[in-house]
Amino acid sequence: MKRNILLTIAYDGTDFHGWQRQQSQKTVQGHLESVLGSLMGREISLKGTSRTDAGVHAYGQRASFTADVGIPVEKLALAANNALAAREKGSFAISPVRIIKAEEKPLDFHARFDSKGKKYIYKIRNGDDIDIFERNYVYHVAKPLDIELMRRAAEEIVGTHDFKAFEASGSTERESTVRTVYSLEIEKTGHDIAIHVKGDGFLYNMVRIITGTLVDVGLEKIPLSSIGDIVRSRDRSKTGHTAPPYGLYLAEVYY
Amino acid sequence: MKRNILLTIAYDGTDFHGWQRQQSQKTVQGHLESVLGSLMGREISLKGTSRTDAGVHAYGQRASFTADVGIPVEKLALAANNALAAREKGSFAISPVRIIKAEEKPLDFHARFDSKGKKYIYKIRNGDDIDIFERNYVYHVAKPLDIELMRRAAEEIVGTHDFKAFEASGSTERESTVRTVYSLEIEKTGHDIAIHVKGDGFLYNMVRIITGTLVDVGLEKIPLSSIGDIVRSRDRSKTGHTAPPYGLYLAEVYY
Repeated sequence: MKRNILLTIAYDGTDFHGWQRQQSQKTVQGHLESVLGSLMGREISLKGTSRTDAGVHAYGQRASFTADVGIPVEKLALAANNALAAREKGSFAISPVRIIKAEEKPLDFHARFDSKGKKYIYKIRNGDDIDIFERNYVYHVAKPLDIELMRRAAEEIVGTHDFKAFEASGSTERESTVRTVYSLEIEKTGHDIAIHVKGDGFLYNMVRIITGTLVDVGLEKIPLSSIGDIVRSRDRSKTGHTAPPYGLYLAEVYY
Repeated sequence: MKRNILLTIAYDGTDFHGWQRQQSQKTVQGHLESVLGSLMGREISLKGTSRTDAGVHAYGQRASFTADVGIPVEKLALAANNALAAREKGSFAISPVRIIKAEEKPLDFHARFDSKGKKYIYKIRNGDDIDIFERNYVYHVAKPLDIELMRRAAEEIVGTHDFKAFEASGSTERESTVRTVYSLEIEKTGHDIAIHVKGDGFLYNMVRIITGTLVDVGLEKIPLSSIGDIVRSRDRSKTGHTAPPYGLYLAEVYY
């Protein structure tokens, strides 16, 4: 009997060319489809929620697949994690991809189309130096950031806007570039800054451009007073730089 | 004028096939020799203190080279770090190798032969789960470790012994397998365990076998009462497993 399985997946994106399957590059989707396919003895096609870029990480990517699955759903995560571990070289190697949860959904459920929104976290280290062991996991900004300016700029970004100015230039034309950012919160703990952003959907590179813009405000390269105009401008040349992929984490998908 | 320069080097060993230069594999020594050679416009040959294995990290590797260096020694670390950064792909990429310090030494100084001893740190996570983002930086031991047993076993290892039982089997014959472990301390902070070991020198895989043996004592696979005999046995089959490379950090070299 065909069943529809929804997976919650965490991964370290460092060694992957992003989520989406590619012919000759190692991707998270390709790797998972291969491991799950071997485990279940049939071809598996995953429908992911978010096409994370190379270097972007996930605590809670979601992806669904339909198959005549022999393994009980409550044992699927463990079986998949064992299969993922077995793919790693060396007896102590730990998989960069982990299935957090597997659950059964109605056959017409779709991981992407049925999602109501997402949460991303962007991690920044603000200080003189960064530990080399964290270089793939946090964006290092050496000069001091004015967090209060960043928080006030964030208030201008929250809400329903045409976010064209926050979309990578050259992106393929979309029906609409209107999105709703439900919340945009900036946490600071010592030298660590975490930007938490929830929205109904995000344009290509939107979280990284929001982050780069907030950083540029925090460095006083972009004046706080111009942020409202910049949000409304629909002009990518007005927003800030695109923050690097490795500070970005897909944290949650809402249904 | 030829000068002898001693470098203190930190690196993330994850993406390297160890320290030592190899024909067709990326190694820390090979990478550094290439970058420093380009920077100085001549061939550079580094003499490193420790041939760390693939996956092993360093906070304070030492390596020396002699060359007619035009750059003032106090500017060498900065220049080398800029050259290392320039070798990375992508404008935000951070080098996995960093020069902490460069200092001039007498021409007859040798980074390895003049070293009086070394300190290594081995990191363990003891608990149910490990963050996938830390999988290359800490050894995950799921079952609870009895730290008191480990500390008492460590006391038996400290001192001057023939450590043949703690050398990888099949190692090339050495003049002597007698070494002195000056101290072996086990720190525990929540689920994190750090083993600090100082000695005048270490045999091949010695720190990893000491760690594996301590872990096996902590899991009560090896009885504490047998540790004295095991240390004296000169028999690799009596000591514990070889802990994985990625938990190991070359912390300091003493002169």
